[in-house]
Amino acid sequence: MADVIASLRTSAPLVHCLTNVVVSQFTANVLLAAGAAPAMVHSVEEAGALARMAGGVLVNLGTVTSVTAPAMRVAVTEAAGAGRPWVLDPVAVGPLPWRTELAHELLESAPPAAVRGNASEILALDGGTGGRGVDSTDAPEAALAAAGSLARRYGCAVAVSGPQDVLTDGTRVVRLANGHPLLALVTGTGCSLGALVAACTAVTGDALLAATAATGLLTVAAENAATRSAGPGTFAVALIDALYELSPERLAEALDLR
Amino acid sequence: MADVIASLRTSAPLVHCLTNVVVSQFTANVLLAAGAAPAMVHSVEEAGALARMAGGVLVNLGTVTSVTAPAMRVAVTEAAGAGRPWVLDPVAVGPLPWRTELAHELLESAPPAAVRGNASEILALDGGTGGRGVDSTDAPEAALAAAGSLARRYGCAVAVSGPQDVLTDGTRVVRLANGHPLLALVTGTGCSLGALVAACTAVTGDALLAATAATGLLTVAAENAATRSAGPGTFAVALIDALYELSPERLAEALDLR
Amino acid sequence: MADVIASLRTSAPLVHCLTNVVVSQFTANVLLAAGAAPAMVHSVEEAGALARMAGGVLVNLGTVTSVTAPAMRVAVTEAAGAGRPWVLDPVAVGPLPWRTELAHELLESAPPAAVRGNASEILALDGGTGGRGVDSTDAPEAALAAAGSLARRYGCAVAVSGPQDVLTDGTRVVRLANGHPLLALVTGTGCSLGALVAACTAVTGDALLAATAATGLLTVAAENAATRSAGPGTFAVALIDALYELSPERLAEALDLR
Repeated sequence: MADVIASLRTSAPLVHCLTNVVVSQFTANVLLAAGAAPAMVHSVEEAGALARMAGGVLVNLGTVTSVTAPAMRVAVTEAAGAGRPWVLDPVAVGPLPWRTELAHELLESAPPAAVRGNASEILALDGGTGGRGVDSTDAPEAALAAAGSLARRYGCAVAVSGPQDVLTDGTRVVRLANGHPLLALVTGTGCSLGALVAACTAVTGDALLAATAATGLLTVAAENAATRSAGPGTFAVALIDALYELSPERLAEALDLR
Repeated sequence: MADVIASLRTSAPLVHCLTNVVVSQFTANVLLAAGAAPAMVHSVEEAGALARMAGGVLVNLGTVTSVTAPAMRVAVTEAAGAGRPWVLDPVAVGPLPWRTELAHELLESAPPAAVRGNASEILALDGGTGGRGVDSTDAPEAALAAAGSLARRYGCAVAVSGPQDVLTDGTRVVRLANGHPLLALVTGTGCSLGALVAACTAVTGDALLAATAATGLLTVAAENAATRSAGPGTFAVALIDALYELSPERLAEALDLR
Repeated sequence: MADVIASLRTSAPLVHCLTNVVVSQFTANVLLAAGAAPAMVHSVEEAGALARMAGGVLVNLGTVTSVTAPAMRVAVTEAAGAGRPWVLDPVAVGPLPWRTELAHELLESAPPAAVRGNASEILALDGGTGGRGVDSTDAPEAALAAAGSLARRYGCAVAVSGPQDVLTDGTRVVRLANGHPLLALVTGTGCSLGALVAACTAVTGDALLAATAATGLLTVAAENAATRSAGPGTFAVALIDALYELSPERLAEALDLR
């Protein structure tokens, strides 16, 4: 995992994010602080061209509309055609049928390198009923079977985010107990993790390793940031600094793998 | 008012925000710090379904386009059909005829629980000529008659934001003198107040009380944040921390009702 | 240059920004801290009306789509018709043909007061091949000939941003060596500079002076902010404070003109 983060900083992969408007700025700053190069292009006319150029592509469904859905479709198709990994963040899949159908359509069009979501989203993506908007009403461990099922179906890694993160490729299972409760009080921390996963898939072919390294980076940085924070405002700022400062060696030491 | 804020934190209502892209991140972080659960969905395919699930709905016209206007229409209709309160923030209504017409159409389609704007916007919404873009060129007190007229027409609360906030339900009038000049130098503070009003309408049926509690929460937090700020950058961050820290009791003590 | 910044603060020009969703919040806060009044309207129904009211108009192509491109066209046409200066920020022009064509179409429809971009974007706009997404793969000095060619073709100023900024109106050349490496690690610093250029064109008819004053303001503020920053998170916040604090006199003293 330390090697993945070291490679991220050395190679500064271009990460094309088709993400939601709420978290775009925070996501870009997280990627920059971690060493990657974010690019965000939403037009159907251009999303495919940028996907072919990118090291990794993120598709986050948060504020998808009829304008951006076609851009997501072409980005996924072109990424796959060019051998670029893509990552799905199925925000609010479950209670909202339109995006749930879109998520399945994208997954069927080209298998992703990884899927990152909360437990409710992963359960819903595997056929469950889902949570309340962007909130998870289930614990990550409860989504392990669903995560494994998705991972085997698409040959991808699945990261279930929560107080304890659970990640699997359908065979191996990793649990990470790093993190801090303030992460849940800052918008875009989960979405930024999806972007970091996409960044890490650009530097390693092992998608489970990529998702685990990204999760470890964000959650250990969160622990460091919390020591300098008075609340969610200062925490969000300190988190960017902490991502920038965290060395691969310190990350490796701080990981709480279960 | 202290009880409203206490309820907000206990029940963490889902607040569906159809808001502008400039302030989405800040609005979500304000809602999270205050204890609510933000969700932002902009597609016409989904905005109605989420409005039915939400505790309150915000419609903010800041960056409305032909793509998001239909989503706003369906969100308002579905919210009303499901008995969910909705709040209008008529950003820049007046000088821009297209959104002015949309604002009136939304108000006529289903009465809102509350309207929050600056004085120029409230005057324009009641038939005046309006200000310059998002800036108010009028003092809140000058909009009191217009606010009362709107409140009686739609059976709603109207909050006129400014150096001294003026709120009315067409019968009662409340004036709040809390706040800080730095609020005007951070984008999204007014828009976030609209979102907080929507959050508070989810926990009390008295819309004037909801709007007053939301205004008090933001403006007292601003006073606390200003004591730790070197300028508008640090103020915006400290405001999120201050919202998170402010107890209902401290809020009640600090209110400067006129 | 000190006079331009003093005028900016006195007159608080309305700056209409058709900019990308990643940087909208940061751009608005930069403009507010610098003394301008940002407004962002993206609809084709309204963008022209606001452009006529504005002191200056920014068109930034970062996340342009088929919905916002028509709004940009009408904003440019109406701004020109009303004698308002407009500024082009050709984000990622070069590798993405659709926006490259749009940039040329806008430039041909009405000459801008200024163009601000990185070296790769300016080279591409003048007919070169361009960089990788939003990153420049060329040094500003390498784009001086292209900048001069564009400046003479459209009768505008061209600002090439980078470690050392190079600006020209096709006759005069200015080099500014202020700034800090952390600027490259915060999303929206370049885009916000484009907005500051638009703000300054609202207060002086000399577009090269406007672009130089805006560049000096942002880069000197960055130097001041860096002295209080632990990383890119705290730097972005401190930059807003520093813009707010920087007096025209201090700016003049700190400028490193080459």
